[in-house]
Amino acid sequence: MSELRKDPILGRWIIISTERASRPKDFVIPVRSIKKGTCPFCSGNEDMTPPEVFTLRAPQTEPNKPGWRIRVVSNKYPALRIEGNLDKMGDGIYDRMNGIGAHEVIIETPEHKTSLGALDESAVREVIGVYKTRLNELKKDTRFIFGMLFKNVGEIAGASVEHTHSQLIMLPTVPKLIKEEMLGTEIFYNYRGRCLFCDMIRQEINTASRIVMKNDKFIAFCPYASRFPFETWILPLKHESHFENISAKNIVNLARLLLGTIQKLESILDKPSYNYVIHTTPFNVESSEYYHWHIEIIPRLTRVAGFEWGTDFYINTVPPENAADYLRDTK
Amino acid sequence: MSELRKDPILGRWIIISTERASRPKDFVIPVRSIKKGTCPFCSGNEDMTPPEVFTLRAPQTEPNKPGWRIRVVSNKYPALRIEGNLDKMGDGIYDRMNGIGAHEVIIETPEHKTSLGALDESAVREVIGVYKTRLNELKKDTRFIFGMLFKNVGEIAGASVEHTHSQLIMLPTVPKLIKEEMLGTEIFYNYRGRCLFCDMIRQEINTASRIVMKNDKFIAFCPYASRFPFETWILPLKHESHFENISAKNIVNLARLLLGTIQKLESILDKPSYNYVIHTTPFNVESSEYYHWHIEIIPRLTRVAGFEWGTDFYINTVPPENAADYLRDTK
Repeated sequence: MSELRKDPILGRWIIISTERASRPKDFVIPVRSIKKGTCPFCSGNEDMTPPEVFTLRAPQTEPNKPGWRIRVVSNKYPALRIEGNLDKMGDGIYDRMNGIGAHEVIIETPEHKTSLGALDESAVREVIGVYKTRLNELKKDTRFIFGMLFKNVGEIAGASVEHTHSQLIMLPTVPKLIKEEMLGTEIFYNYRGRCLFCDMIRQEINTASRIVMKNDKFIAFCPYASRFPFETWILPLKHESHFENISAKNIVNLARLLLGTIQKLESILDKPSYNYVIHTTPFNVESSEYYHWHIEIIPRLTRVAGFEWGTDFYINTVPPENAADYLRDTK
Repeated sequence: MSELRKDPILGRWIIISTERASRPKDFVIPVRSIKKGTCPFCSGNEDMTPPEVFTLRAPQTEPNKPGWRIRVVSNKYPALRIEGNLDKMGDGIYDRMNGIGAHEVIIETPEHKTSLGALDESAVREVIGVYKTRLNELKKDTRFIFGMLFKNVGEIAGASVEHTHSQLIMLPTVPKLIKEEMLGTEIFYNYRGRCLFCDMIRQEINTASRIVMKNDKFIAFCPYASRFPFETWILPLKHESHFENISAKNIVNLARLLLGTIQKLESILDKPSYNYVIHTTPFNVESSEYYHWHIEIIPRLTRVAGFEWGTDFYINTVPPENAADYLRDTK
């Protein structure tokens, strides 16, 4: 059983996973590296993963057999487990709870493709639809108050399987960064009476210099204070607090913009490792006037050094205006 | 001229460096990799660095020539520059200022050694003494309110030169993480009337299971909510808010514990890449009852994936109790 422990200084929760305890020398090689050999996510190898919990598959095909377009399975090495109680308790000045949660893998295609950028638009629409479906299904479990949807592509970005997939981790606590984003935007809202993200969108449209793509419903831009070269955010133009409430029409528009942005990044940066994470409002907030869900895409081009770890103060060698310029000009 | 830009959501300042602007393809290879060829930090190659701003050197030897034990130079590619005014200003809803600061490199030995762990204890004492001297010298410039001392060892930790060295960046603003640590400990102090770090030290001594080393003046332990395997913190036992006020006696004790801890990490993990960062109170706070300076040492064994970026919520596969056990048992 893993454990959630809270850093008393910062209020940050850490998952201490005790199930994969190894001898120290095992850590000399980065623990997350792409596994070689038969791909567990390809069609025909369904028995290499835990059984599917959800699929989009052709009629009259059997579960855990070929015939699927998207397949959702539990993570074989879950960071958190679904069985048990939280058992929140103190440990002197420290706080802990059991590592309760869910950890699912969304396999985006039966074919061996290595990035979402290689899918066609209708497949990306289905991927986003599955994100929505799984979040809505798992949030029925009231122990969970946050669902984190993310994607690791390439070894540098922490992927351990090459075949394109996303992950969903359901948490019994709100991650520190989301809590801080909610606090920052709440302060702004209390002061100005407007959503900070909506204000950013207005200024970005006005300025135009940091826009990567835009359609009727979404905008992709390189943020003013980008931490990383070519960091790109995608936001719905109209205020929405919870990703899982996305409409069918918005799924169509998001798929087009997400696919387009990733294809631009892959073309200009020669298929970089990248991560994206969906930032959305916790389930215990019914609807929020000040928090605006969005996707943060981070190409992993530079190493993060001691300075960044120690300070949360980043050095970015590519101004977002230049990055957006390059991206706009790329097919 | 680089620029400091503030993320309006989180209040995090980013350095946008425009002087090394490159074509996108240049970013395909991680920008920080160890440079091959003649070592610019070895004795005899003094002309390969900017001129020295401080040295410990033998009497009657000339500046920028051999004869030194420790040599401080400006960073050849500084993230911030010392000339100019801050020119704080708004940009619509965003905030910016000029990239004013100082960025120095502390070359710890004239010989080509690749980690502080390879120095002898008297050399480590001198390194810590130089940290103190440079901080006290540079804090006279009232534009600076924080001095960040850190070390990158190995390519994975972001080092671009192999020869053992530390860096000092003087900032016109307090980094977000330090600000948060100060806030968290202030809240605790207001509630309990005690320093949270002092409480942690008491509990760690009581529990004993996470202690790595201890002497009369300092303790090294793996924190309860360690983000990374073998993360180790070093704290003065007696409350002290500002590192730069460290006494001569404490320098002796810190040198012994810092060297011992790094040698243990290097022995058990087979010379890993690592970072350390000194967390200390900003200069604009005269003395603090609640913030306790300390050193955070992070071996870089695992990759940080999308989950961590998106949430500030880490998964650590080695419980700190196990890490401390291994470290205690190692010479």
